[in-house]
Amino acid sequence: MDYYGSSIGRLIESLSSLPGIGKKSAQRLAFHIAAMPEEQVKAIADSLVEARSNVHFCKHCCTLTDGDICPICQSSKRNHRQIMVVENSRDLAAYEKTGRYDGVYHVLHGAISPMTGVGPNDIKLKELLMRLQDEDGEASADEIIIATNSSVEGESTAMYIVKLVKTLELPIKVTRIATGVPVGGDIENIDEVTLERALKGRTEL
Amino acid sequence: MDYYGSSIGRLIESLSSLPGIGKKSAQRLAFHIAAMPEEQVKAIADSLVEARSNVHFCKHCCTLTDGDICPICQSSKRNHRQIMVVENSRDLAAYEKTGRYDGVYHVLHGAISPMTGVGPNDIKLKELLMRLQDEDGEASADEIIIATNSSVEGESTAMYIVKLVKTLELPIKVTRIATGVPVGGDIENIDEVTLERALKGRTEL
Repeated sequence: MDYYGSSIGRLIESLSSLPGIGKKSAQRLAFHIAAMPEEQVKAIADSLVEARSNVHFCKHCCTLTDGDICPICQSSKRNHRQIMVVENSRDLAAYEKTGRYDGVYHVLHGAISPMTGVGPNDIKLKELLMRLQDEDGEASADEIIIATNSSVEGESTAMYIVKLVKTLELPIKVTRIATGVPVGGDIENIDEVTLERALKGRTEL
Repeated sequence: MDYYGSSIGRLIESLSSLPGIGKKSAQRLAFHIAAMPEEQVKAIADSLVEARSNVHFCKHCCTLTDGDICPICQSSKRNHRQIMVVENSRDLAAYEKTGRYDGVYHVLHGAISPMTGVGPNDIKLKELLMRLQDEDGEASADEIIIATNSSVEGESTAMYIVKLVKTLELPIKVTRIATGVPVGGDIENIDEVTLERALKGRTEL
């Protein structure tokens, strides 16, 4: 790749190390960046370094955030006794966008997956259990809503959490978000497992 | 978006200002970056700033490169009397990858497009004309191969270059890369204009 000169080559290489950016997009981005106003490039570079050094796991819900505790866990408007368990911070963001959930979250940062060697200790499960009990051994939550993905890993993780919470013997309800036909979904194009689950989960009108 | 905390929010914003990176990919990238090893993030940030400050237009062919003159224009193995005119440095890279071209290039950095307000003076046409004549008024090239895109803008630019070069009244051949059916292309799925051009440009076997 010495037809670009080494700076562009290095930039292409470092950009294509990011997820979802292939050789072609990295090349397009690199040439775009090389022609951008210098301050703008500096601003992007700074925001990268800044995000990496400022961002930590929230001490309560483990989402990625500035400082010790995330804005949601700090908010007095949220119901802190209702905890939605999600696989990652992007799933949290997706639920926040609905604007219809006023509880708090717990971010696992993964799902149990024996195939890829991710066990219960590799995700933030210990931190979840710690949150469910106060110092006096009383339940510090009323409900845990499991919103892991509807994949094999997500489902196993959900089952595992149910078992874990049951062992605490506390009056905490554990629920799972519904599986079914997505809004706007065309029945004829939806897989059988989803259709079966949608039938099983039917509700009275 | 204050559910992320401000550092992640700023990073998402700055990433989504880049071409081809939408809100969703920016979000995925940002969370990935926030969880990456610190040195790796610094390296990416440095390569951004470094590329922007080191990279200039090559004094001969106008491609983006480190230093004054690009490796291709410096090379004694290339035929400096054959100049391929391309729209941008990515097109140069595409032809270099074929390994079948040993002339040099001229990068226009755009194509004439009255619709978007790009005129002949907005692309590196003046620089091309300057390259074609030496101090004594003699031709300093034998052939110009026009390899602009096969789009309306690319074609108009090609026609414009032909006219410009003709006004110099020098013995320089001007050629255009062939339009036709791409290798592996399925005739039934190819548009009529391409098919018509492929027919017109047929060669004897």
